[in-house]
Amino acid sequence: MIVLGGNRYGKAEVRLVRVDRGDPDAHSLKDLSVSVALSGELAATHLTGDNSAVLTTDAQKNTVFAFAAEHAVAAVEDFALLLARHFVSSQEAITTARVSIDEYAWDRISATGHSFVRSGGETRGTTVTAHGDAHWVVSGLRDLVVLNTAGSEFWGFARDKYTTLAETTDRILATAVDARWRYTEQVPWDDAYRQARDALLTAFADTHSYSLQQTLYAMGKRVLETLPSVAEIRLSLPNKHHFDVDLARFGLENDRTVFYAADRPYGLIEGTVTRDDAEPAGEAW
Amino acid sequence: MIVLGGNRYGKAEVRLVRVDRGDPDAHSLKDLSVSVALSGELAATHLTGDNSAVLTTDAQKNTVFAFAAEHAVAAVEDFALLLARHFVSSQEAITTARVSIDEYAWDRISATGHSFVRSGGETRGTTVTAHGDAHWVVSGLRDLVVLNTAGSEFWGFARDKYTTLAETTDRILATAVDARWRYTEQVPWDDAYRQARDALLTAFADTHSYSLQQTLYAMGKRVLETLPSVAEIRLSLPNKHHFDVDLARFGLENDRTVFYAADRPYGLIEGTVTRDDAEPAGEAW
Amino acid sequence: MIVLGGNRYGKAEVRLVRVDRGDPDAHSLKDLSVSVALSGELAATHLTGDNSAVLTTDAQKNTVFAFAAEHAVAAVEDFALLLARHFVSSQEAITTARVSIDEYAWDRISATGHSFVRSGGETRGTTVTAHGDAHWVVSGLRDLVVLNTAGSEFWGFARDKYTTLAETTDRILATAVDARWRYTEQVPWDDAYRQARDALLTAFADTHSYSLQQTLYAMGKRVLETLPSVAEIRLSLPNKHHFDVDLARFGLENDRTVFYAADRPYGLIEGTVTRDDAEPAGEAW
Amino acid sequence: MIVLGGNRYGKAEVRLVRVDRGDPDAHSLKDLSVSVALSGELAATHLTGDNSAVLTTDAQKNTVFAFAAEHAVAAVEDFALLLARHFVSSQEAITTARVSIDEYAWDRISATGHSFVRSGGETRGTTVTAHGDAHWVVSGLRDLVVLNTAGSEFWGFARDKYTTLAETTDRILATAVDARWRYTEQVPWDDAYRQARDALLTAFADTHSYSLQQTLYAMGKRVLETLPSVAEIRLSLPNKHHFDVDLARFGLENDRTVFYAADRPYGLIEGTVTRDDAEPAGEAW
Repeated sequence: MIVLGGNRYGKAEVRLVRVDRGDPDAHSLKDLSVSVALSGELAATHLTGDNSAVLTTDAQKNTVFAFAAEHAVAAVEDFALLLARHFVSSQEAITTARVSIDEYAWDRISATGHSFVRSGGETRGTTVTAHGDAHWVVSGLRDLVVLNTAGSEFWGFARDKYTTLAETTDRILATAVDARWRYTEQVPWDDAYRQARDALLTAFADTHSYSLQQTLYAMGKRVLETLPSVAEIRLSLPNKHHFDVDLARFGLENDRTVFYAADRPYGLIEGTVTRDDAEPAGEAW
Repeated sequence: MIVLGGNRYGKAEVRLVRVDRGDPDAHSLKDLSVSVALSGELAATHLTGDNSAVLTTDAQKNTVFAFAAEHAVAAVEDFALLLARHFVSSQEAITTARVSIDEYAWDRISATGHSFVRSGGETRGTTVTAHGDAHWVVSGLRDLVVLNTAGSEFWGFARDKYTTLAETTDRILATAVDARWRYTEQVPWDDAYRQARDALLTAFADTHSYSLQQTLYAMGKRVLETLPSVAEIRLSLPNKHHFDVDLARFGLENDRTVFYAADRPYGLIEGTVTRDDAEPAGEAW
Repeated sequence: MIVLGGNRYGKAEVRLVRVDRGDPDAHSLKDLSVSVALSGELAATHLTGDNSAVLTTDAQKNTVFAFAAEHAVAAVEDFALLLARHFVSSQEAITTARVSIDEYAWDRISATGHSFVRSGGETRGTTVTAHGDAHWVVSGLRDLVVLNTAGSEFWGFARDKYTTLAETTDRILATAVDARWRYTEQVPWDDAYRQARDALLTAFADTHSYSLQQTLYAMGKRVLETLPSVAEIRLSLPNKHHFDVDLARFGLENDRTVFYAADRPYGLIEGTVTRDDAEPAGEAW
Repeated sequence: MIVLGGNRYGKAEVRLVRVDRGDPDAHSLKDLSVSVALSGELAATHLTGDNSAVLTTDAQKNTVFAFAAEHAVAAVEDFALLLARHFVSSQEAITTARVSIDEYAWDRISATGHSFVRSGGETRGTTVTAHGDAHWVVSGLRDLVVLNTAGSEFWGFARDKYTTLAETTDRILATAVDARWRYTEQVPWDDAYRQARDALLTAFADTHSYSLQQTLYAMGKRVLETLPSVAEIRLSLPNKHHFDVDLARFGLENDRTVFYAADRPYGLIEGTVTRDDAEPAGEAW
């Protein structure tokens, strides 16, 4: 028999900008993309089109804006918790709410207290899942692009008939870090984020690398060593290949100076670093 | 203690174009993006940088190209199976191989037997996972953009203090279908794909819709009714909102004629339709 | 002295969808992105912030929607002409109006008279410029991706010390056509568009090519031969390189079968084909 | 008669990364995308497929890499000048060469002397055109995203029957600056770039704005006042609308706190600020 399986629905990418004018000489700014996904007793709308349990995605959007007016928006984790708990506690049919927020960073332009420039670089994010009274917080970042010009080797790998790659004791290592880590307790979220980001950067930089896998593990381990509140971290690291350009054809030496930055294909290294005694992840991911 | 968790690695987005010149008056073309992800006994490279179990991602890329020369490439499912089985059977350390292929479609330009134009529209894809002697095939499509100008209502939904949406018995319904379905047996893959695509389109068109959830379920059910070889289908349907433009301000009537196509935010409806007696999914997804 | 130079302003990317329900059994659909750019006596707003000559971009957007309600929208050229003439004739300060429209194509899903699927492929577009009583129409398309598996050579080129490319008498030739052509009279726009598109495809296919430049010229010439109403055509053709993969390393022959489709860098060939007695382009481009 | 009009060709988006290891304790990095476009006596390849005047785009790519090995790459303007002059002086058929370079910025990770993180934000660029012995340098930036939370008004605008926008004395003003300026002499390029960027930011911030046009003019004027070596600047400023969200429906006040950041449509303001006695632009643009 054909039956309905797992399902969820919500409003995605609500682009909210909130201005705090508390200090008239130094406004501050939160620039967010908020996505909501709800699940629960939703079979009727799928099977018969009876929408009586469906809180509209339009109302979800309105809730995001209204909560931003009613509450100070500090860390994105706090705002996501507020929203996720609201949906599961106020809607009987909704048993699980997942709220994901991306945050875009801005720097001040020094000329005034009300002028800002987007700082670019990585995007910070969080995903909070509430189920009944329980909740889980997974935070992270993506598009943190890093590169080492030294301290990276790659040799001693397996060989089959299709293996032609030359071994190297000195290559460029570059990646765009996508990392998400699971908290097991509430912490000062902004501080923890900065510490995690620093740990990722520092471990990438100071690990003498024999493979991107080794660097991945070192980065994850560093975050867990730095933050006791983090049980687990998942990393996805594209290997952004930088190939030596053969210039001998033109009578030129190329002593690791000139590289071609390739787009595709790319290596993709994915892995989890965890505590062996971590509490189960439940519905966190 | 901090330990390594789940991990995999591979080469992503190998852009392979294969020309079949068997009939000199009617060449044919396969245009693919192939991604490989391998997992197995890979702790050493993470923990110590010992790469002796690591088949390089460069060799994986070479394998994709070499197999395209050695074998006719018919359906993407067949080519993915060939590759996935190769990696698990030839590399002792590799216990699981996942090969994903996207296929870009081309039409003939009638003027010659060797001229083609990209047909655009949806992208067909497959993900094949091989583990030991077992394997799983999940196929699908994405970016199949569809729209109904009639036959869609939305009313009778839940109401909270943030609900302001007007009920409607006649709205535009539009989405970009992202669907993946799990096969439980080998079938003529190209035929099955065409049948699944037709089932999705037809069910979208002929279902009188009271919610996008209802349409999602009808689309999934239609695929399962059409294809006994499919155990389960997962659909992700963004609700691409088309809003009535208020023209009364200009003394004009707008009787469901003029719409504003919004980008963000958008509704996002995700669900699974399955057989209640389907064999377990194993490592298919 | 520092002075204001050329300037214009407007609303970009108004996403208008218009449904024609005239035949209840066969609705039809126009899916457009409309951009307006106005110029004229606009020094004051730049120099002093006096906005009395500034028709707001919000009003421009409203005009697009209102005109779509008041007028049948047939060819995009007609709708752009209507809008461009409106702005220059109704606003004293506005001397030139440029209206650009992109059109996204849809096919019918046969199951109903109100169901559609995006056909993908190329995007049709037009740019109409009105200045006083004069106007110019430039139409075109972009992202028409084409490929020949035979009939393309490249040899006999210039050589300098950095030239290492091998000559070839049989290569893959692929490009994404971006073409814009200038009309000198009003014609049945939809017919003319189909003829131009056919001419581009046919000339690409049936020209034995010694360079992409030669193919470009043949394509432009064919459009001008086909359409007496076209004075000039501008083509921008990226050379989407497809490189032979060296499989001899694996003991395999690769007789023009397996190719690697590269992303970057790419050749870029740009050129104009024109009538030598064409009337001047004025403000068309 | 149908004839060939203006044309050019070249290699686009050569992704060059150059590492300077002069100081082993502090490597430095240039990350560039280089595009070349050549024009001259190129009728033959278009009309007959005779390629004897065509320097291959592959050789152009090789030249970019080879020059990066032979020469220190300081400012992108210098490297573009070197390349552009090379092509016009070494190839008899080539009369004009245009070299465009985008530069991606990196910051140091303090942990080592060889570790870097992409700084995101704006992209710096230059376009150098060489024709015979003459040359022109146009430099600039794009995607410099800025926002003012105060100091922006918009009222007193023209009104027609489609004008419904409310006047405001306090709005959010946000844009993504795309600016290109023409130098008339050789200057210390990196210093000049920093001064131009600072001028743009400072003028955006400290101009009390009555329209985005006024801000555009102020930004351009500030760059010209700061840099006597700049004759002209062209700015393209999308008005990234931030709309007040109506929360009164929920009994909430929204005193310029909560905004919806819209994607499309957007205003687009384009203008030039120039010196009235500037030397002609020649082939600079």
